[in-house]
Amino acid sequence: MQALKLHADWAPRPEYLPSEQELETRNIRNAHMVWHNPRIELGPAPEPELEADQVRVQVAAVGICGSDMHMYEADSDGYMIYPGYVTAPNILGHEFAGRVVETGNAVRDLREGDLVAVEEIQWCGECISCRKGFVNHCEYMGEIGFTIPGAMAEYIAVRERYCWKLDELADALGSAEEALVMGAMGEPTGVSYQGLFNRTGTWLPGHHVVIFGAGPIGLAAEALSIAGGACQVIVIDPSASRRAIAMRMGASRVLDPSAVDLNEALLDLTRGRGVDYVVECAGYADRTLQPLESCLAVNATLIDIGMGGERPTLPIVTYKQRGVQLAGSLGHAGKGVFQNVIRLMTAGRIDMRQMVSERLPLDEAVAAFRRLESREDAKIILLPG
Amino acid sequence: MQALKLHADWAPRPEYLPSEQELETRNIRNAHMVWHNPRIELGPAPEPELEADQVRVQVAAVGICGSDMHMYEADSDGYMIYPGYVTAPNILGHEFAGRVVETGNAVRDLREGDLVAVEEIQWCGECISCRKGFVNHCEYMGEIGFTIPGAMAEYIAVRERYCWKLDELADALGSAEEALVMGAMGEPTGVSYQGLFNRTGTWLPGHHVVIFGAGPIGLAAEALSIAGGACQVIVIDPSASRRAIAMRMGASRVLDPSAVDLNEALLDLTRGRGVDYVVECAGYADRTLQPLESCLAVNATLIDIGMGGERPTLPIVTYKQRGVQLAGSLGHAGKGVFQNVIRLMTAGRIDMRQMVSERLPLDEAVAAFRRLESREDAKIILLPG
Amino acid sequence: MQALKLHADWAPRPEYLPSEQELETRNIRNAHMVWHNPRIELGPAPEPELEADQVRVQVAAVGICGSDMHMYEADSDGYMIYPGYVTAPNILGHEFAGRVVETGNAVRDLREGDLVAVEEIQWCGECISCRKGFVNHCEYMGEIGFTIPGAMAEYIAVRERYCWKLDELADALGSAEEALVMGAMGEPTGVSYQGLFNRTGTWLPGHHVVIFGAGPIGLAAEALSIAGGACQVIVIDPSASRRAIAMRMGASRVLDPSAVDLNEALLDLTRGRGVDYVVECAGYADRTLQPLESCLAVNATLIDIGMGGERPTLPIVTYKQRGVQLAGSLGHAGKGVFQNVIRLMTAGRIDMRQMVSERLPLDEAVAAFRRLESREDAKIILLPG
Amino acid sequence: MQALKLHADWAPRPEYLPSEQELETRNIRNAHMVWHNPRIELGPAPEPELEADQVRVQVAAVGICGSDMHMYEADSDGYMIYPGYVTAPNILGHEFAGRVVETGNAVRDLREGDLVAVEEIQWCGECISCRKGFVNHCEYMGEIGFTIPGAMAEYIAVRERYCWKLDELADALGSAEEALVMGAMGEPTGVSYQGLFNRTGTWLPGHHVVIFGAGPIGLAAEALSIAGGACQVIVIDPSASRRAIAMRMGASRVLDPSAVDLNEALLDLTRGRGVDYVVECAGYADRTLQPLESCLAVNATLIDIGMGGERPTLPIVTYKQRGVQLAGSLGHAGKGVFQNVIRLMTAGRIDMRQMVSERLPLDEAVAAFRRLESREDAKIILLPG
Repeated sequence: MQALKLHADWAPRPEYLPSEQELETRNIRNAHMVWHNPRIELGPAPEPELEADQVRVQVAAVGICGSDMHMYEADSDGYMIYPGYVTAPNILGHEFAGRVVETGNAVRDLREGDLVAVEEIQWCGECISCRKGFVNHCEYMGEIGFTIPGAMAEYIAVRERYCWKLDELADALGSAEEALVMGAMGEPTGVSYQGLFNRTGTWLPGHHVVIFGAGPIGLAAEALSIAGGACQVIVIDPSASRRAIAMRMGASRVLDPSAVDLNEALLDLTRGRGVDYVVECAGYADRTLQPLESCLAVNATLIDIGMGGERPTLPIVTYKQRGVQLAGSLGHAGKGVFQNVIRLMTAGRIDMRQMVSERLPLDEAVAAFRRLESREDAKIILLPG
Repeated sequence: MQALKLHADWAPRPEYLPSEQELETRNIRNAHMVWHNPRIELGPAPEPELEADQVRVQVAAVGICGSDMHMYEADSDGYMIYPGYVTAPNILGHEFAGRVVETGNAVRDLREGDLVAVEEIQWCGECISCRKGFVNHCEYMGEIGFTIPGAMAEYIAVRERYCWKLDELADALGSAEEALVMGAMGEPTGVSYQGLFNRTGTWLPGHHVVIFGAGPIGLAAEALSIAGGACQVIVIDPSASRRAIAMRMGASRVLDPSAVDLNEALLDLTRGRGVDYVVECAGYADRTLQPLESCLAVNATLIDIGMGGERPTLPIVTYKQRGVQLAGSLGHAGKGVFQNVIRLMTAGRIDMRQMVSERLPLDEAVAAFRRLESREDAKIILLPG
Repeated sequence: MQALKLHADWAPRPEYLPSEQELETRNIRNAHMVWHNPRIELGPAPEPELEADQVRVQVAAVGICGSDMHMYEADSDGYMIYPGYVTAPNILGHEFAGRVVETGNAVRDLREGDLVAVEEIQWCGECISCRKGFVNHCEYMGEIGFTIPGAMAEYIAVRERYCWKLDELADALGSAEEALVMGAMGEPTGVSYQGLFNRTGTWLPGHHVVIFGAGPIGLAAEALSIAGGACQVIVIDPSASRRAIAMRMGASRVLDPSAVDLNEALLDLTRGRGVDYVVECAGYADRTLQPLESCLAVNATLIDIGMGGERPTLPIVTYKQRGVQLAGSLGHAGKGVFQNVIRLMTAGRIDMRQMVSERLPLDEAVAAFRRLESREDAKIILLPG
Repeated sequence: MQALKLHADWAPRPEYLPSEQELETRNIRNAHMVWHNPRIELGPAPEPELEADQVRVQVAAVGICGSDMHMYEADSDGYMIYPGYVTAPNILGHEFAGRVVETGNAVRDLREGDLVAVEEIQWCGECISCRKGFVNHCEYMGEIGFTIPGAMAEYIAVRERYCWKLDELADALGSAEEALVMGAMGEPTGVSYQGLFNRTGTWLPGHHVVIFGAGPIGLAAEALSIAGGACQVIVIDPSASRRAIAMRMGASRVLDPSAVDLNEALLDLTRGRGVDYVVECAGYADRTLQPLESCLAVNATLIDIGMGGERPTLPIVTYKQRGVQLAGSLGHAGKGVFQNVIRLMTAGRIDMRQMVSERLPLDEAVAAFRRLESREDAKIILLPG
């Protein structure tokens, strides 16, 4: 079958000593320290084997994510930008949906022909974190498209338990194709759902919400905030084109962070009451969360999703004075995240297609990655199937 | 000033022995046991005195509530139907909004000309329940229009702390008048908000929601469920006209309880997954909550708001098997309920005017009560000011 | 190996039509309707096969539970009393701990010689309930000692993911044997932990707590309530000997329900403030939860664990007036229940050995069951290993 | 009557421009910027007036708090160290209990002779924060002993609603005097209760808990953690004498932060699982919370109470990777904190007298402050009455 493969050269930086396990598996904890000269190519790959509890999925739609770009792009030293777990060579692609074309012997509920969206996080279900319900923090996690073969390919084999059916969504939209494109957005939307609604239990309809970053995660957070009853959703992003998409998707207001004093602007927009909920989807916490003080309402909640700006200097004296909470959020699995996201899509309360700027056949994958280098598009969806 | 007064005769039923306090205050815990021959009349009443921490409000809009009807109506023995605290004679009216026309010396934030909606529950703020934040369960509560003078009058004096400003709502609607009509719906909407979002912490966007009763509380629960991200809102009411209003306000589906098996119908509508959230606003728990078993999803929540059907036989074995919770909910005060409700109105996420069937001057109050005897209207708003 | 087997005759009651699946698997949803003439015998059984993700456990301690008794005992018609899922013949025993003596190839963290307590609920980890974290409501659950072979035997094979290590507990107690006896109590203690601390999020140190039933589940709830900071723990049970155990384990007060008016007594013991937390471990909700009204504090929580009294007539009008919540609770798996229970044992904050009245070798199992018919003992532990 | 008064000279630092309100009221938002040459003296003061909703309390016991020391002590420039709201001259003292000796006309529940502990935070009950239940963040707060006359005096007048009865505690201890000494600890214990149990809803019995700082707030957090079911309480403080007190009060382990690597030590003490709950009571977040990374368990909670180290550089990347939450906590009022603290004292689950190193008559107040300059004592209680 055809697949989009990531290649890179094994060249540990002098200061980095790979562990024995890394040497053995070539699965590197911080790709940025080892993988040099990353590149992608479209070419043949063997079809995946099917295990008893797996289904074979014909991939219908797969999104290109910011992480995909960061695996593809190199820094000035020629090293892969992405700083997390990566194996190479590997097939890319982790935001996807498709059709079940074959089922293993132990598969219970899925049938050939079912439409499914699939979780990227392959939680083990056995470690202590998984047993406690924190599957996004699985100790033995596999990640589709990062450490195990991804979905920018004709077929992928996945365990039934990572699959969520899209049949009701297809009925609601009157189109399997549209359901599959929307289903491919389940993963990034799930990341925002997990942060907004599952992390602190402080979400309430009527909140003033601020979202930093109008990339896919931020736009999903915007759509979910509106669906979940925010009274005002203020999206902050330095890119004018991204702000325009945010407005089109229903933001109450957008701000250019370089043009305003954040505290003043947010106090003003909330008539002095302050913001109740802040979602960091930009990955620059040192420029987004760090300055927030006088604009925070009593009992405000800060949800930190974006990777980057990793050690901000935070005004915790204000957090005490106003009774503020901050929570880090990671992942999209567990707790029914996919189920709730798909239901919101089915009910028409969110329509993530609004952020899709282009749909392209898998054949044009390499060109699509090149085009995304400019960061003008919100989301490109590849259509392998 | 003009006011709509409730009169009734002191005639304790033989089996009812009023307490000394009841004898002294004529504030009866269960009006149904004492007040005979209830009747209303429009007539002059003295303007209210203003205390230092109060504002004088010129009432602009006041709704007629089911409880108002139950104070006005008698059973076959001639006793008032309403079974809670009532003083007579008294001015009726507790769902209202108006303009501040005078402020006491100790008033801090309100100014003449401010538009306000007002909580009906006059929590003392001093008892143990209030100190713990459970102001809806205040041990020394006064209730506007039940035990203290109500708002079906030109003026009313209320403490500043029960008032919530409608200025942003007026700006959003471009009309003070419309903001005042909508503000008068703050109280019934707040009752539903408290039940849906403050009682159990189990609300999540994506839920399948069932609402029993399409009266004002049920319709408010419907509007709030949609605003809060329900994926499906199923409203159940025996009245065809009320079901029609529910559909107009955006219900996914309406059911006539006499025409279906509840468990089957709800399982069917949720494709076998069961309902996640049930809100009882009908006051017939023995016919609404009691039968629910196989239709309940794992971790389902039952919120009981409606007064009536007070001792149902509940299938708690099912609650164990499916990990279900049930919570009683009362009142609309505290925890920012009014603030959040007004913000949702301001953001256009709920529009409670959709259930207002008629707006009438205070002069036509008696006729309006008569008309409501047929229960055809959802909500009539009187306009005293 | 030696094992204690439950036998019974297949004799569906005339009014009960077994499903096809029941006919095929002989795993009956309601044992009370099918299994006749139950009896137990000690005899040889084949050693269990070991699968790749399983460990072979040499059982060191296994408790006899009320459910074991109800599978062993017959009603006046000769039918098994227990009304849940049961297969026959089967090896009994589901409250147990033991030593790992062999590990399958796919086992990751356990080693030969490890001491483990084991969950009874064999959740599938794949169904929607499991994926959402509600593993106690697994749709494809196996139950050790009910529907699959139990632990009243020399050996049992279980998946690693159901095992929780007792090494720290053994260190703390200075004895592997004692850790294994205490570990056998992990399951019933976990049932109470789940009810008290995981179901509603309303537990707070300083609560007045009432526990109905001083059997093992109730006594565990008592111990956990004390450990979790209850200011007063009132245990209610008609049996004087059980009340004596409850007092010995640290109850603030015990009550004989037949000797008092519950509401009066509880109001009196809480100086009029009412009880904050009620735990039903007796299985007679119609006599325990049903009467509670004036004794309930504002924001009181009712946790229903005990099976029985399944359709009580509940005063939900009081639940509304006082803002009360009620939750059904089932099971002991997931959310780190076993981990937390074992840690509390390790810290010496609970000592479940206090309720063990006798430890006997497996050889005396049949005699132990006979002795328990009188319900004088709190808990008998069998020691197979 | 006799009272301990704080004096200081009005001398705004050149860079500090007092607001008009500060000029008028001499109530300074940041005392450190204005009050020079602070000093205390014992002398006559007028007895407080009694308002209708107040009770006159004869102070029986009043603690000297770290904040008292910081108002009394000057920095090298001669300015008061304390950086919050202070009026001068003023009577000091805010941790206290006493006997009601007179009741205002509007007082409902208190009687002459009642023993009471009193909240320091005089929340207004009227502002938006108070109405939402966040009384510790009252917008018009008065603070006993900081901005209004304190309790290091024979008498004080306080509103009934800030008083919590100690009668059950006196019964339990068999001594009014002991109940009053313990009651004086209600305020600092309440600060820790609020942080531990009310802020995030993540507390669970069985947690590994770390407490930074073994001053009164930290020791109270220790006592409450034990009472609330922590499996291990590790207290970290650089002072050997304070660590000794922590051990005496039941800590599982104490650490000297200068002698260990925090992450290693805590991982080791939790056998690699990590700590679940961290409470900052030291006021050096840049040295306590900031370094914590590998020692944090998945779903760990950080509660920040101590004032100081106000802008730490926090490793939020770890918070994401492990799903950690951090909450600022302030105050001891609202939500039944005092009620629960007094109940725990009554039940004998906490005994705050263990940290009292000395009880002295009010006459020796000045000497007591001098003695505390060395920070050797944990808590000195003055006995005015």
